[in-house]
Amino acid sequence: MTSSPFPPTRFQSFDEKTDPGQVAPRLAALRVAMKQAGFDAFLIPRADAHRGESVPASEARLAYVTGFTGSAGLAVIGSEKAGLFVDSRYTLQAPAQTDTGKIDVHEVNQGGISPDVKLYVPKGGRLAYDPWLHTPGEVRDLAEKLAGHAEIVPHANLVDAIWSDRPAPPVSPIEFLGHNRAGRTAADKIAYLHDVLAAEPADAAVLTLPESICWLFNMRGRDVPNTPFVLGFAIVPESGLPTLYLDEAKITPDLTRALDGIATIAPSATLAEALEKLGSDKRAVIVDPQSAPAAVADILRQAGAEVVEKRDPVLGPKSRKNDAELAGMREAHRLDGVALAKFLCWFDAEAPKGELTEIGIVTALEACRREEETCIDASFDTISGAGPNGAIVHYRVTDKTDRRLNAGELMLVDSGAQYLSGTTDITRTLYTGSATPEQKDRYTRVLKGMIAISTARFPRGTTGAQIDVLARQYLWQKGITYNHGTGHGVGAFLGVHEGPVGIAPRYTLPLEAGNILSNEPGYYKTGEYGIRIENLLVVRDAEDFPGYLDFETLTLAPIDTRLIEPGLLTADERDWLNDFHARVWTEIGPLLQSKAKDWLKHATAAI
Amino acid sequence: MTSSPFPPTRFQSFDEKTDPGQVAPRLAALRVAMKQAGFDAFLIPRADAHRGESVPASEARLAYVTGFTGSAGLAVIGSEKAGLFVDSRYTLQAPAQTDTGKIDVHEVNQGGISPDVKLYVPKGGRLAYDPWLHTPGEVRDLAEKLAGHAEIVPHANLVDAIWSDRPAPPVSPIEFLGHNRAGRTAADKIAYLHDVLAAEPADAAVLTLPESICWLFNMRGRDVPNTPFVLGFAIVPESGLPTLYLDEAKITPDLTRALDGIATIAPSATLAEALEKLGSDKRAVIVDPQSAPAAVADILRQAGAEVVEKRDPVLGPKSRKNDAELAGMREAHRLDGVALAKFLCWFDAEAPKGELTEIGIVTALEACRREEETCIDASFDTISGAGPNGAIVHYRVTDKTDRRLNAGELMLVDSGAQYLSGTTDITRTLYTGSATPEQKDRYTRVLKGMIAISTARFPRGTTGAQIDVLARQYLWQKGITYNHGTGHGVGAFLGVHEGPVGIAPRYTLPLEAGNILSNEPGYYKTGEYGIRIENLLVVRDAEDFPGYLDFETLTLAPIDTRLIEPGLLTADERDWLNDFHARVWTEIGPLLQSKAKDWLKHATAAI
Repeated sequence: MTSSPFPPTRFQSFDEKTDPGQVAPRLAALRVAMKQAGFDAFLIPRADAHRGESVPASEARLAYVTGFTGSAGLAVIGSEKAGLFVDSRYTLQAPAQTDTGKIDVHEVNQGGISPDVKLYVPKGGRLAYDPWLHTPGEVRDLAEKLAGHAEIVPHANLVDAIWSDRPAPPVSPIEFLGHNRAGRTAADKIAYLHDVLAAEPADAAVLTLPESICWLFNMRGRDVPNTPFVLGFAIVPESGLPTLYLDEAKITPDLTRALDGIATIAPSATLAEALEKLGSDKRAVIVDPQSAPAAVADILRQAGAEVVEKRDPVLGPKSRKNDAELAGMREAHRLDGVALAKFLCWFDAEAPKGELTEIGIVTALEACRREEETCIDASFDTISGAGPNGAIVHYRVTDKTDRRLNAGELMLVDSGAQYLSGTTDITRTLYTGSATPEQKDRYTRVLKGMIAISTARFPRGTTGAQIDVLARQYLWQKGITYNHGTGHGVGAFLGVHEGPVGIAPRYTLPLEAGNILSNEPGYYKTGEYGIRIENLLVVRDAEDFPGYLDFETLTLAPIDTRLIEPGLLTADERDWLNDFHARVWTEIGPLLQSKAKDWLKHATAAI
Repeated sequence: MTSSPFPPTRFQSFDEKTDPGQVAPRLAALRVAMKQAGFDAFLIPRADAHRGESVPASEARLAYVTGFTGSAGLAVIGSEKAGLFVDSRYTLQAPAQTDTGKIDVHEVNQGGISPDVKLYVPKGGRLAYDPWLHTPGEVRDLAEKLAGHAEIVPHANLVDAIWSDRPAPPVSPIEFLGHNRAGRTAADKIAYLHDVLAAEPADAAVLTLPESICWLFNMRGRDVPNTPFVLGFAIVPESGLPTLYLDEAKITPDLTRALDGIATIAPSATLAEALEKLGSDKRAVIVDPQSAPAAVADILRQAGAEVVEKRDPVLGPKSRKNDAELAGMREAHRLDGVALAKFLCWFDAEAPKGELTEIGIVTALEACRREEETCIDASFDTISGAGPNGAIVHYRVTDKTDRRLNAGELMLVDSGAQYLSGTTDITRTLYTGSATPEQKDRYTRVLKGMIAISTARFPRGTTGAQIDVLARQYLWQKGITYNHGTGHGVGAFLGVHEGPVGIAPRYTLPLEAGNILSNEPGYYKTGEYGIRIENLLVVRDAEDFPGYLDFETLTLAPIDTRLIEPGLLTADERDWLNDFHARVWTEIGPLLQSKAKDWLKHATAAI
């Protein structure tokens, strides 16, 4: 492999981060703890109490015990056997990372608990779980799956008990967004929540999602990779100041000053006490059954509170970005467009030589982004899939899997960055010197679907579920599709995946002006190649069509026209592509110099 | 108005069928009965116990008391005031038919009971309802809406008590479909239901929908207009013969012989007794909460049965038409294609003279259909909307509303027939000499949506909710839409509207091979014109695309090409239209003679 002209990555590593040899002694230690506590099995999820895609090292219990580092999974440790349940994204990675002599790996569907959990719990036995790591919805699901088989019992985490060298929880610097970035004061957002609570039969809401808390207080941190989260909890009463619960080490005089008059700050250790107080005061409290820890609901109920199971009330307003947030997102996409143009210019020169590798490509892309100093992180580990690896939808390259990109193979790069101004997420499928007619046909159908969403106009009340088919129709004509959603919500300098809206049959809430969504149809031919084209879109009121919404495209990077079969595009589709490219040239061209500028001129030429 | 060269209609009448003068005395009589029975209010729905769109004269209680003859509605008769709740289809018709001095007319959404029912029931009062005329779902809805306000009490029907000249229940001849028409024996269908029941925690199912019962026993009748129903009930046990409950007058030796070895026959009067027996035997019984009378569930529960609320188990298999049913439906559409060609040929010659009327058009169309002697009925009252009346989605022409069709106006004709071979439903929007650019634009966008559905291909598991947007997308681009579903299920020589699948956001069940659906996007400009284009489609396995489904078009009548703006059609859309017309010509042309044949040749010419 060729030596890279770029500095090493800072945002992404390529090691396997795992040692299967540790599995046996850790399982043994855990089983001793289980026996002492009187349990036949213990449950270890990937999630922490905040349900983030990234967890801090201090919360990586699943990786600590099983070696598996994927972003979703669940282990059941029985007294003799153990099982690890992962979805299809991780069927290759999980067995490679864990000790398969000690742990059986099961492939299961995403969402819901597998009934096979039973295999690891003896009939009539007791299964313990940490109620801070499972939602009320999951606990109900688990109880149903084990009904008549075993008892499930909430218990303090047994992994923590054996984890001698456990890292300390993250204490990263906290910043507050100025009004030019947040567009709305924390006080105003809190007043909005007060109104929501006044209209509900509820006296308070418990917030446990860091995206909700960060949005509410216009606050960002660096507690986890990829997403500028401050981890914590909050209780918002119907009137008066909310209380923000943070790790004691984070509570500084500066922080207290910054939140003066906006929130009371308290150590996380006092959260349970505060929940008990809500109970003894007989309050009705909103808890999100899909995201809050079961422990929150349990403590409230046991103390006498009425638990009102309702979606986190911040998710809706957070998803409707205001003008300042939209301006920031546009700025972030200009910065990202500059980085992408430099990267694609470099790629175009190098790829036909057949010497690039997947890791080299990630490194180059990160280097191009890091030239912009407000780029603080990748928004997720870049998916860099050369040739057949492009067909692995959630592929993450490691030193072991790194593959040379041969000239003539398709290259799929799905990446994003966190700029101080906003969050990006873009996928491009790249030409490297030749493409088969089938590849061009598939690429063009994916593009047609992407354009159909980009140009959709729809009445208020329309859901992401309804428009999803627009992206799939041209693939369906050939009897093919893609097994993932068409789009997900994206935060403004927050999570690159956020609810509650998206584009897929499961998203049944109406789209609203200000929602930011990805638009990323694809096609994957196992063992051969993968295609995906992704732009981010903003839902907006359609000009001249009262009551209707349409999309503004945020992403400003060229779509490789050498992979298009022009005969498959309608005149309208060709017009859209040429207009999009003209806009990329107009907005990004002036920010580039010499080679990259020349390259962009050519890459955005009308077809 | 011109005198018609056609014989008068037999399938449809144009009178208002109502006398508002009767409202006052009947309300007075009903109030006496209410008072004697100890009630403050009584509920009168349009529905009978079988939930059909048409009810026999003996069940037309709502019309008897209020004068209102629409196909859906609910009256609440209080001791002083009375309210009639109708949906937007009937906001004009209801006040015209009832005595608005005695009854307030409310416009409400379809589905669900209006909370305004309260207005007619005093606080703390008692509202009686007939439990044979409401489903368990409706009763629960009613109880919720009146919670804390009034008591709701099931009671024998008070309208029946005052209805001195009530017609006898219908006793029409019953026919049995031969294997060439049904494609599956009743014994085989019953065996299928036995298997379904064996797999369910249920010992029996009660069937109350005539379409289910007629399908199960391969039986048809003429108990109501428009649909070849035999009204009755059935109980299907997990094993052994089902029992069919019919009006005693229908139980003839011939009928008993025809069902020998297939079903036991019993008088409807013994149904309650049989339900009680299921209760005393402690059976678990499937009752459809969306269609069965609440009385059925009540009797079962009170007698000790376990009521299993589940969708009528016949609806699924009935909706998947077999080869014989499909062959019949294709034959029916050839016959209907012949009738339509003759009608459209006549219309084309006459309309530009500006002398036609809506009723004359219905009469001509029915006459063309009746030339085929196996045409036994219209499948619904023809919607014949000239000019602005075309914008009234469910318009039914009467002598009072009949309107002349001026040359240059659009004409919307939505009609269908019951042939012995099958059921049709077709809408065409007709040219009468000129059309505005806007009308052509709208017509072409409606057509593009209709073609998008007709040519859709989709993987198994796809729902009607998912593909609905394909029909709307081109209208949405102009900020317009239509406020009805894109398509409904259609029975094979049964109801022209049937569940459980359709094309609209509310249809969340997967489409399956053999489903027959209408495809009928439209556009309505109030006070000006209406456009709708409707074909029937069959879902089938897509040839050469394993795991995918697509549609076969059943309807064989030309689509008026003079209303098309050709520049809006893609090459693929034009190809579809030309292929469709070529097929209409190939299949229908040889069945026509002279003038109609020449006309069809011209009407199906490629554009």
